[in-house]
Amino acid sequence: MSYVLTITVRRPFVDALAATRASLAEQGFGILTEIDMAATLKAKLDVDIPAQVIFGACRPPLAYAALQLEPSIGLLLPCNIVVRSLDLDRTVVEAIDPQTMVALTGNDALATVADDAGQRLAAALDALTPAPAVS
Amino acid sequence: MSYVLTITVRRPFVDALAATRASLAEQGFGILTEIDMAATLKAKLDVDIPAQVIFGACRPPLAYAALQLEPSIGLLLPCNIVVRSLDLDRTVVEAIDPQTMVALTGNDALATVADDAGQRLAAALDALTPAPAVS
Repeated sequence: MSYVLTITVRRPFVDALAATRASLAEQGFGILTEIDMAATLKAKLDVDIPAQVIFGACRPPLAYAALQLEPSIGLLLPCNIVVRSLDLDRTVVEAIDPQTMVALTGNDALATVADDAGQRLAAALDALTPAPAVS
Repeated sequence: MSYVLTITVRRPFVDALAATRASLAEQGFGILTEIDMAATLKAKLDVDIPAQVIFGACRPPLAYAALQLEPSIGLLLPCNIVVRSLDLDRTVVEAIDPQTMVALTGNDALATVADDAGQRLAAALDALTPAPAVS
């Protein structure tokens, strides 16, 4: 299975970042964590990578349901969304496929939660167009 | 495969939380994110769960190496460590098994990074004893 839900949008990084934030909120996800990977690696290792931010997104009812079904599921929470620059006007936005929760735990009871989260994340990515998707 | 590296220690939650923080630093992990799941779910849903904190831990050289090998690996970063209370004097400390990065991506080139991270996380958990592990 692929572990990635992905879209490439014809938007500059900063614009795609803001749009992703809004799109996740629209789908009921709160952003619990935000890591500026480029800044972190620059500060720690003095290396340069293209702009990249990792959001940790959580929809509390889904997280709570998952915790009731799988006590260790916090290891796979929150759901990560990566926004990373390809070039000046193209940005990749990726979300972890929540079906990975089912695959890694082997706990089929998580399927309903994973389906719900996956549909919402896919919708959040889809909403990043009409800035047209590029191949 | 199991996705969990785990230890149960005979320590109260607050003590185990502090010890985990120190133990991760000792193994070269910075803590980039920290989510108080119990407080978050209380605030958002008004439900009560046992004390639980999710640390997002990152060892920058490993993260950088992984990004060179797998552009979407940010979806699986940072490595999560969960500290959760079992009862007044026992706490579970769990880390994601970094071999899940290899399994989910199917990218065998990540094995060296996963091995290094896994050894460090296992050592971080082991160091939480001499407070003796309980079954």
